[in-house]
Amino acid sequence: MKNFSFQNPTRIHFGKGMIARIADEIPKEAKILITYGGGSIKKNGTLLQVKEALKDHASTTEFGGIESNPSYETLMEAVVLAKEENIEYLLAVGGGSVIDGTKFIAAAIPFEGDPWTILSENATVHKAIPAGNVLTLPATGSESNSGSVITRRATNDKLAFLSPEVFPRFTVLDPETTYSLPQSQSANGVVDAFVHVMEQYLTTRENAPIQDRYAEGLLLTLIEQGPIVLKQPDNYETRATIMWAANQALNGLIGLGVPHDWSTHMIGHEITALFGLDHAQTLAVVLPSVMHVMREEKASKLLQYGERIWGIKEGDDQERMDAAIHKTRDFFERMGVKTRLSDYGIEESAIADLVDQLKRHKMTTLGENQNITPEVATQILRHAA
Amino acid sequence: MKNFSFQNPTRIHFGKGMIARIADEIPKEAKILITYGGGSIKKNGTLLQVKEALKDHASTTEFGGIESNPSYETLMEAVVLAKEENIEYLLAVGGGSVIDGTKFIAAAIPFEGDPWTILSENATVHKAIPAGNVLTLPATGSESNSGSVITRRATNDKLAFLSPEVFPRFTVLDPETTYSLPQSQSANGVVDAFVHVMEQYLTTRENAPIQDRYAEGLLLTLIEQGPIVLKQPDNYETRATIMWAANQALNGLIGLGVPHDWSTHMIGHEITALFGLDHAQTLAVVLPSVMHVMREEKASKLLQYGERIWGIKEGDDQERMDAAIHKTRDFFERMGVKTRLSDYGIEESAIADLVDQLKRHKMTTLGENQNITPEVATQILRHAA
Repeated sequence: MKNFSFQNPTRIHFGKGMIARIADEIPKEAKILITYGGGSIKKNGTLLQVKEALKDHASTTEFGGIESNPSYETLMEAVVLAKEENIEYLLAVGGGSVIDGTKFIAAAIPFEGDPWTILSENATVHKAIPAGNVLTLPATGSESNSGSVITRRATNDKLAFLSPEVFPRFTVLDPETTYSLPQSQSANGVVDAFVHVMEQYLTTRENAPIQDRYAEGLLLTLIEQGPIVLKQPDNYETRATIMWAANQALNGLIGLGVPHDWSTHMIGHEITALFGLDHAQTLAVVLPSVMHVMREEKASKLLQYGERIWGIKEGDDQERMDAAIHKTRDFFERMGVKTRLSDYGIEESAIADLVDQLKRHKMTTLGENQNITPEVATQILRHAA
Repeated sequence: MKNFSFQNPTRIHFGKGMIARIADEIPKEAKILITYGGGSIKKNGTLLQVKEALKDHASTTEFGGIESNPSYETLMEAVVLAKEENIEYLLAVGGGSVIDGTKFIAAAIPFEGDPWTILSENATVHKAIPAGNVLTLPATGSESNSGSVITRRATNDKLAFLSPEVFPRFTVLDPETTYSLPQSQSANGVVDAFVHVMEQYLTTRENAPIQDRYAEGLLLTLIEQGPIVLKQPDNYETRATIMWAANQALNGLIGLGVPHDWSTHMIGHEITALFGLDHAQTLAVVLPSVMHVMREEKASKLLQYGERIWGIKEGDDQERMDAAIHKTRDFFERMGVKTRLSDYGIEESAIADLVDQLKRHKMTTLGENQNITPEVATQILRHAA
């Protein structure tokens, strides 16, 4: 196990009816900005529950319209509003996009200089205004971690930042808020959480049996519960389990002391930036190809994954690795998420553009061993055609 | 899954050389009290590393001599010293006993009224002075949780308290500090961590597949690594894995949203109070009997445990449960920890005294269903004879 330092200060309130807990989490006199997305929280009653919980609070303002793959342009409108209104506390109500966007707003409000440099130049975030959230789409783990991914529409840039300053103060995970999700979003969430685990687990071997076991437990659970949620969207236990799995997949724990890959995400971000695919769709396309192309350095873990997750014990190493990759692709397809660029109408001729985007974003040494060069990324994308 | 709220704010520094990190964790001007036990930290160089890290700090005082099963009497001496010296920060260097004891010191210093009531009457701890620790004996998880168990020698009371105020601010887990542990303490630590998992896992079934999988991952890892540490005390990877397993076993995570048992601990505490057995020895004696006597309400999980941990698939339910209990007892014995009261010279005639102690401490409705009455506890202890 490699050395590490770890702290995750976010308080978690999990379960039905727990939205009421935000009443005590946010100071009564704080000027609150409630941020959200396209308005589904109005239809499914979540916003009503939030307002009920805040009925004794002095001041709430709303900012809606944060998109999937939240845009810098939209978020800067919220920053302007928040400064005008002297906002002191942010409450994000939504999925990973709303929460990621709200982290950026929280960091940008007190930022001295051009907030875009937080993303473009990894400028240090020295402070952020406090923020909490009510999660309505389990997928990204953003509700209790310190990461955020933002897109600048004008330039097709999809970039990430990390800062301990933007750890949410609290998160409410009420599985009932997820009953009304469209099936495609439920499926995307499962795939997203699955790939978050894989980015931290399916790497060049490091001795870390506890992290391995927990990662495997999350994968097994997602494989078991994912298909159930498609058939029984109102199954509380399944919704609760998936919500908790997605949280644990990216709260920092399984990635402690081990190498991380994240090449699937970085390549996937460019597919979203150029072609607008859902984040999870890009992951379902790229991961099986990364597994295929990078199989030699991942061999030891890929064989362990095949055996412990899919029960693959027959055949030589190459056959077992092929079987494990096939099972992974098949799982995504069973979740209704297609796994080939061609499924989304993207032709092989577009691969050069995607690789150019990677170069432009200095993503030229990806993967846990920094050896996914533009040439290797090209191979990966070709295999995903 | 049941509703829960969870926060664990302790910052963890894990790995060789990480003791140096305490330099930045404790304010330079703070008056620090370093607490420890019998002096093994002087022999193995840990105290020297601590002092090196604190060489630019203004003021350090030492308080040694905190015993295994830390005593109220000793700890109150530290409280008097800390008040005389206007101590502002506590640094525990040692195992669970030193850390538990230091939590009590931290709570007792600012406590208004008789500090014993924190234990005897669950008096609320409204504040505590800040504390961090350097762990040298992985076992209890106390280094990053909010619990503490204290013994009053004068009256043979061994009692626990819990308070978010005593969460350590930070913990350093350097596996190299554990190389010099006597084999019996290494073995005890593995058994202690194993039983911590079982108290939160082997209960009446609640739907919580992720908590189950992580608990099982910890058990499998302890079973795999425990015997190795006895043969290879200087194996860094094994020491690191056991240190992390013991931490994760009782940092709150695996117990979220599920019933807890803890009857093995409560009964075990009385055996230590009356007969002075090591904590882990009492757990190794009591757990197999709890599994045997409470098998009907634990049946579903006990069968799952047998299959997933020990690969037991043959036989009817009762046979498989018997086999799982046998395997558990056998593991403790292989770790060199005896599992019968008679192994420690405790006769059946002592059982009445142990049950009287439980009654005196109002421990008359133990277990996840509060149905381990004194009569059932008697059965459990008889089966452990």
